[in-house]
Amino acid sequence: MQSEVMLTTYQDVIAASHRIKGHAHKTPVMTSKTLNDDFGAEVFFKCENFQRMGAFKFRGAFNALSKFDERQRKSGVVAFSSGNHAQAVALSAKLLGIPATIVMPHDAPEVKVEATKGYGGNVVIYNRYTEDREKIGSELANQHGMTLIPPYDHPDVIAGQGTAAKELFEEVGELDFLFVPLGGGGLLAGSALATRALSPGCTLFGVEPEAGNDGQRSFRSGSIVHIETPKTIADGAQTQHLGRYTFPIIQREVDDILTASDDQLIERMSFAASRMKIVIEPTGCLGFAAAKENKNQLRSKKVGILVSGGNIDLKRFCNLVETGLV
Amino acid sequence: MQSEVMLTTYQDVIAASHRIKGHAHKTPVMTSKTLNDDFGAEVFFKCENFQRMGAFKFRGAFNALSKFDERQRKSGVVAFSSGNHAQAVALSAKLLGIPATIVMPHDAPEVKVEATKGYGGNVVIYNRYTEDREKIGSELANQHGMTLIPPYDHPDVIAGQGTAAKELFEEVGELDFLFVPLGGGGLLAGSALATRALSPGCTLFGVEPEAGNDGQRSFRSGSIVHIETPKTIADGAQTQHLGRYTFPIIQREVDDILTASDDQLIERMSFAASRMKIVIEPTGCLGFAAAKENKNQLRSKKVGILVSGGNIDLKRFCNLVETGLV
Repeated sequence: MQSEVMLTTYQDVIAASHRIKGHAHKTPVMTSKTLNDDFGAEVFFKCENFQRMGAFKFRGAFNALSKFDERQRKSGVVAFSSGNHAQAVALSAKLLGIPATIVMPHDAPEVKVEATKGYGGNVVIYNRYTEDREKIGSELANQHGMTLIPPYDHPDVIAGQGTAAKELFEEVGELDFLFVPLGGGGLLAGSALATRALSPGCTLFGVEPEAGNDGQRSFRSGSIVHIETPKTIADGAQTQHLGRYTFPIIQREVDDILTASDDQLIERMSFAASRMKIVIEPTGCLGFAAAKENKNQLRSKKVGILVSGGNIDLKRFCNLVETGLV
Repeated sequence: MQSEVMLTTYQDVIAASHRIKGHAHKTPVMTSKTLNDDFGAEVFFKCENFQRMGAFKFRGAFNALSKFDERQRKSGVVAFSSGNHAQAVALSAKLLGIPATIVMPHDAPEVKVEATKGYGGNVVIYNRYTEDREKIGSELANQHGMTLIPPYDHPDVIAGQGTAAKELFEEVGELDFLFVPLGGGGLLAGSALATRALSPGCTLFGVEPEAGNDGQRSFRSGSIVHIETPKTIADGAQTQHLGRYTFPIIQREVDDILTASDDQLIERMSFAASRMKIVIEPTGCLGFAAAKENKNQLRSKKVGILVSGGNIDLKRFCNLVETGLV
């Protein structure tokens, strides 16, 4: 039997919005007449690719670190991540004057290691194939009294991520549909809390990579499904399972989980760059791709699409949009 | 001796801002903490790459067409352009219910021909090497009573283009420096009128491609210099000379004309895409590139950079940022 956990509430999202104010960007909501014509709908993009360090992850990390007490601030934070969470924790820690240790795999892209160091993070490299990152993280936490902040399964992280959808509803009013990328569920759970408070009638979809539909299977079966790390270009959503804090909220508040293929993600990345003039990383296009696939259902409706981030190496970006998956 | 012309005034810019309201986008002003740290300055980007049809040209075209009388509306508009002006006139005409004829060279990129047709424009193709586009345009104007709207040398076009800088100053207040791309001078002349009215102490630079510095030579010599079509990737600034309406305003109000090389434009396009997550066309980076070159002069200052547009084929974009000019 699962142990009881105290689930995040919309009150926590409100509190988070006060904590991040003046630190996180209130990102722009963009529209595209070309896209509206294509969908026959009114579509609003909440652009977290314009968030600090390039992704929504900053919101949750900054909220969590803001709640540290004196002892925690002194001993520091530890996080393991090769992606946006690493940079989010490193930057938040720097802004709050907290020492940060980031555990990254030996084969993490040099650009991400450098970015994390650039934000002042102390990077510890581990071998992905021979060492256990969770064990390393726990040891650092135990031995040095550091506080471990996980990438999604934490009440304060969920509350912080919910502030993006909160801002969206506050700016454009209630919506008929909202599409949110889904990896471990931090963004989706937070968005769900904001949606039910500010736009209760909105149909809310989480969207995950087709190659790793553990979220869809978990949602439909009622218990958390674990999978192998899925092979997809959506590197921000290569999670193996939902979390014990994220799943119950998703189960209770979300209408369904959809999937998007890598080809669909690339097609939307190209559209966003050539027509909307914005760079979105593959994971950031999950919601957009599912909305496109279901556009007939959206006709004459008011639709929100959460764009989660824009962190992609330019060479990789061009490689994907030019040659697809070949 | 040059004949007297009635020069555009800031009052005309104000009038234009009322005409385009609700039709043109009030484009976002963006900032980048990474860039501010690099420059040691506070930098504001006025993002006309997010304007309708992807460039500031919509402002001037819509303003000019809005002033048509009943007869002009009925007979229609004619424009010759292979670039953003073509799409700006076609879209403005469509929105105002005016027939539009666009004269384009036989080797214009298919994507631009299609975009112009997509906006409802009647495209007339001419041979760049054997036919004279100005003659074709004049004949269409004379035979069918169409009104010719040139891409930059027209008082109403200048007034419309000035609304972008007007919005920038109204949003961020006075500036110490403003960098504006320069081709034929419509955007720069309009920006100059807004600058002198709203931020009189601002140092205003026009920036043109290094390969075609006719503007700089004209400005410094005091009379309009004509050159051959310059070889540069900044296709929106491949003009051969300033205009009789744009030059006197530029001469009177601008502080200096700077230049940027193609390599510098590519470097800034890459920075904008990878760090700011926005797509800017080469011409749109002219102001940004000159600001970067002169960043030591900008320390602790408040700086505006006008980004003129984002219309570039994605394949071409990737080719430039991946391989440079090789």
